Amino acid sequence: MTLSAWESAPTFAKADLIVVGAGAAGYSAAITARRRGLSVLMLEKQPQIGGAPGRSGTWIWAPNHRLMREAGIADPKDDALRYLARLSFPDLYDADDPHLGIDPADWVMLEAFYDNAARALDELTEAGALDPVMRSDAPDYFADLPEDKAPYGRVVVSRGRMRPDQLTGAEWVQDLHDTAVRLGVDIRVGYRVTDVVGNALAGVTGVAGESEGTPFLARALKGVVFATGGFTHAPDLMHDFMPSPVRYGGASLGSEGDFLRIGQRLGTRMRNLGAAWLAPIPLEPVLRDPTAFTTNIFALRGDSMILVNKYGKRTVNEKLPYHELGLSMLRWDPASVEFPDVRLFMVFDRGTREFFADGTSGNPVPPLDAPDGDLVSGQTIPELAAALDARLRTIDPAGRGGVTLSPDFADNLAATIARFNAAATAGVDEEFSRGSSPIELFRNGPARPGNDLNPAMFPFSSEGPYYALILAPGTLDTKGGPAIDVHGRVLDYSSRPIPGLYAAGNCAGFPSANAYWAGGATVGLAVTFGYLAACHAADSINPR
Amino acid sequence: MTLSAWESAPTFAKADLIVVGAGAAGYSAAITARRRGLSVLMLEKQPQIGGAPGRSGTWIWAPNHRLMREAGIADPKDDALRYLARLSFPDLYDADDPHLGIDPADWVMLEAFYDNAARALDELTEAGALDPVMRSDAPDYFADLPEDKAPYGRVVVSRGRMRPDQLTGAEWVQDLHDTAVRLGVDIRVGYRVTDVVGNALAGVTGVAGESEGTPFLARALKGVVFATGGFTHAPDLMHDFMPSPVRYGGASLGSEGDFLRIGQRLGTRMRNLGAAWLAPIPLEPVLRDPTAFTTNIFALRGDSMILVNKYGKRTVNEKLPYHELGLSMLRWDPASVEFPDVRLFMVFDRGTREFFADGTSGNPVPPLDAPDGDLVSGQTIPELAAALDARLRTIDPAGRGGVTLSPDFADNLAATIARFNAAATAGVDEEFSRGSSPIELFRNGPARPGNDLNPAMFPFSSEGPYYALILAPGTLDTKGGPAIDVHGRVLDYSSRPIPGLYAAGNCAGFPSANAYWAGGATVGLAVTFGYLAACHAADSINPR
Repeated sequence: MTLSAWESAPTFAKADLIVVGAGAAGYSAAITARRRGLSVLMLEKQPQIGGAPGRSGTWIWAPNHRLMREAGIADPKDDALRYLARLSFPDLYDADDPHLGIDPADWVMLEAFYDNAARALDELTEAGALDPVMRSDAPDYFADLPEDKAPYGRVVVSRGRMRPDQLTGAEWVQDLHDTAVRLGVDIRVGYRVTDVVGNALAGVTGVAGESEGTPFLARALKGVVFATGGFTHAPDLMHDFMPSPVRYGGASLGSEGDFLRIGQRLGTRMRNLGAAWLAPIPLEPVLRDPTAFTTNIFALRGDSMILVNKYGKRTVNEKLPYHELGLSMLRWDPASVEFPDVRLFMVFDRGTREFFADGTSGNPVPPLDAPDGDLVSGQTIPELAAALDARLRTIDPAGRGGVTLSPDFADNLAATIARFNAAATAGVDEEFSRGSSPIELFRNGPARPGNDLNPAMFPFSSEGPYYALILAPGTLDTKGGPAIDVHGRVLDYSSRPIPGLYAAGNCAGFPSANAYWAGGATVGLAVTFGYLAACHAADSINPR
Repeated sequence: MTLSAWESAPTFAKADLIVVGAGAAGYSAAITARRRGLSVLMLEKQPQIGGAPGRSGTWIWAPNHRLMREAGIADPKDDALRYLARLSFPDLYDADDPHLGIDPADWVMLEAFYDNAARALDELTEAGALDPVMRSDAPDYFADLPEDKAPYGRVVVSRGRMRPDQLTGAEWVQDLHDTAVRLGVDIRVGYRVTDVVGNALAGVTGVAGESEGTPFLARALKGVVFATGGFTHAPDLMHDFMPSPVRYGGASLGSEGDFLRIGQRLGTRMRNLGAAWLAPIPLEPVLRDPTAFTTNIFALRGDSMILVNKYGKRTVNEKLPYHELGLSMLRWDPASVEFPDVRLFMVFDRGTREFFADGTSGNPVPPLDAPDGDLVSGQTIPELAAALDARLRTIDPAGRGGVTLSPDFADNLAATIARFNAAATAGVDEEFSRGSSPIELFRNGPARPGNDLNPAMFPFSSEGPYYALILAPGTLDTKGGPAIDVHGRVLDYSSRPIPGLYAAGNCAGFPSANAYWAGGATVGLAVTFGYLAACHAADSINPR
C-alpha cells in the first residue's frame, strides 16, 4: 500500500486488540482477551475461518494439564523441559546444566510453554470452547526416551459429539468461533492485512490491508496479534528459506507468509526459518493443484505395506512419526548427486486395504469398496512397477522435482518385498526395527486377524492386486518467522520487544527448532502463545 | 549508534565508493572501481586485512576464463549453467527447460557468474593483482557428472614465487592489497562499520561505525559495497540460522554477520540463510578457543585411514569433497534420537603419517617427526579407543555438542578396520566406493610405494602406533544473507534493488543453495560479484 493510499484509507474500526488470522492461535488470543474485558477485532483474509486445525485433527499437546493432574499423572517441570530440550537441541542438550545446555533464552521459552499450556486450555475450557478429554492412550512421539517421564497423557482433544472420541478439526474450529462470537469478538472474513501501522522502534498501533479491493486501516489500542500461519503456499518464501527439496504442503491456503513479509520490513529477528512440521504428502493432488485441499499423511497404515525409493529399496522405518518420515525424505546422496528419497512409494496389497482402511484423515489407504483414487495398481509386482513408471512419467517427469524409476526398480522391489516378507514372518525387522516403539504401535492400530507377531508387519500376499501411492515430502506448515518472547511479543533484530506487536502459532519463530515432540505440539504451541499474547496485551497499562 | 551520536559523529571521509571488508570480494570491488576512475575508501574492522583467502588457499573457480580459451578448452555457457543448476537445485533441474527448471531469477544469477567470472579475473590480472595460472590438473568436485563438460581447467591460482605452483592465501592477499594501494585506494583498518546511512526506499549514501571507540560517518557518492563475510563467528546468528549441529568454523574472525544485521534492519530479502561452505574441522582447537586460527580440513589424506563415528563404524566415503563430508555429519537419526555422525574420528596408522603428511594447509596429518598435536594415540586399537574415550570426556563431555563413545566402540572399530583392510587388499570399497572419482584421487595424491591397487586405500599395519583426530562439522564460512541481483545490488523484501547498496562474497545471499561446485567456487563468486558491483557503481550516472 502506498503512503497516499494509507492516508486516504478510512479507519473502519478501532479495538483494544486486533487479532489477524482465524486459526487456533488467533481464537485463543481473541477469547482470552475478550474474557479480560478487551474489545477484540479479528481479521481473516480468507472467506472462511479455520486455519490449520480446520484441515486436520484437533490434538492439543500440553504438558501437565489439569486432567493429567486430576488423574494423578505426574509431569514435573524439570523432566518435561528435559524432553523438550533434548529433542529440539539434541547436540547441545546437557542434563547437568541449569539451562540443560541450550541457550538460556530458548530455555525460558520452553519454560513458558510448560507453565502456560495448561492455563491456555483452562481458559478455552472455561470459555466453553473446549470440552477437554485426555487421550491417555496416545504416546508422545519419543515416548521411549529416558527424558520422557510422562509419555502418556499430554494429548487433549475436545469431546466428540457425532463420534465418541473427539471432534473433527472443523467441528472444533466452529466451537472456537461460536465462543468468540458469543463473547463479543468482532470477526471479519475477507479482510486481508498487508502491513502494520508503526515501526519497530515506536511500536505498532494498527494494521492496514484491503477488503474486496478497498484499503482499510484499523486501530489497535493495546496490540496486534498475528496468528497467520506459515508460508507453505508462498513459493518464493519456500524457495528462499526451506531446505531443498521441500516444495509442497497441506497447510491452510492462508499460509502465504504474510507476517514473515511484514517482519522483514519491520526488521524483526527471525528464528527457525528453515524448519517445518513435516509429513509425507500424496504427490498427485498437489501437482494437479498445489493450493487444493490436500492432507498430509499422519500414519502409514498397513502391515503388508512398505515404502521404497526410486531404486525399489526401503530407506526408513515406515512407522516412524510423520515428521521423521518427512525429514528422512530430504537425504542428500553426494555419490548419486541427488535426493534419492525425495519420492517414496507406499506399496501395499489387498490385505492392507482390507484391514487398515478406516477413512480417517491422514490415512491414505482407501477401503476396498472405495475408488482407487491416486493409487497405481498392478496384478503382479512387475505390472505394478510398470504402471508406476508410466504414472511418474505422466505426472511428474524428471526435472521439476520429478524422478523416474531406476531400471532395476522392479527387480529390486520384488527382492525388497521378499526380504520384508521374511522379516514379517519372523515378526522382527532387523533393518529398521519397525513396530518397536509405542507411537508406532499406537498409530499402526491393532494387528489384523491371525497376526500374533509384530502387528506392524505382515507378509505381502502372493497374489495381486498390488498398489502404490506416490509420496513427496510436505509441510503441515512451516514454523519459522519473526522471533517472539515469553509473552508472545515480537522481537526486533536486537531482541527488543516491539511495543504492541505479538505473534503466535506457525507465523512466529519459536525455538522448537526441527523437533516435533508429539501429536498436537503444533496446536499446543499455538493456543499457548495466543493466550500469552492476549494476557500481556490485557495487562498493558497504557492504552496506546 | 543512537541518533544523537550519529549527528555528532564527524564525517571523516567522502568517496565515490565505500568498500567494507578487506577480503577477496572487497579488493576485487576496490580495484575494479579505482580502475574506472572512482575514488575508493576501503574499511576493514580488523587490525589486519585478508578475510577468508587470508586463511586458506587461493583457488579461484571461474568458468570459461581466458587461459581456458587460450588453451582451447571449451566451456560453453549452456553446459556450464547445467552443471551449476544441476548441483544447486538438484530436485528442480530440468535439462529441457529454457531456465533448466530452476527459478528464472536464479538462472540469471548463475548466468551473471558465468558471463563475468573471466572478466573479473582479467580485471585483477590487468591491475597486477593476479598472475593467473590454470590448474588444469584440478577437477571440479563433480567432474563425473554428465553435465560437467569442462571438468578440468576452471581453477585458477596466482603464480607462486616461493613455491613453484601457487601463492599462499596470505601472499595473494598482499598482492591484492599492494595493487589497491598502488591504484590509490584509501584503505583503513580498525574501522568497524555498524550501519548504513539511508534506508531501503531512499537508498544508501554512506556508512556509520566506530574506530577506536570514536564514532564516524563516511559518505559514499556512488555506492557502498559490503564484502564482510558470513556469520560463522556470531553465535547468535549461527544459532538462529544454521541447521543443527553446525556450531563452529574456520572463517575469518571478522565473519560476525555484520551485514546480515544491517540487512535485517533495512528489511532486505534474505537468501540461503541455512547454507554454508562446510568442511570437517578439528575439534580441539576450536574448543580451546572458538576464535583461534583454525583450519578446516580440505583433504582427508592417507590410505590406511578411515573415518568412524561414535559407534566405531564408517559412515561415508572419506575421500568425498570436504563440503560433502560436512553435510554427511549432519545426519539425524530418529531411531537413536541424535546426530550420530556429529563427531567423526579420523583413524590412521603410522604409514599414513609417513606417506601422506605434507604440511599443506588443510591436511591434518602431521609428519612423523612433528609433534602429535591434537592426535590421540595408542599402540593397539583397544588402547587407541580407550585414549579417545578419555580425551572426549575431558574436552567435550556429553551435552554441549559432545559425544561419548558407544560401549562397543573398540570392538566395532577393530571389526571396521578388519573389513576396511580386506577391501583395501582387494582395492575395491564395496561400501562407499572410495577412490572412484577424479576429485578423490586428485586430493588423495599418488599411491604410496608398493600400492598398485586403489591409491586411496591401504591396509592398516598390524602394529601400532595408531592415531585418531576428533572432527566436528564446521563452516569455511556461511553463505546466506541479503539477496543480490546480477549487478551485486542488494534487494529489499520486494526484490527491488536498494539504491547505492551492493554486496559480494559470503555476506551476500547468492543462489548457490547448498552446493559446492568446485574448489575455488567461494573466491570465484566473491571476486565476480565484487567486480560487478564496482562496474555498476562506476556506471551509475547520478552521483548521490
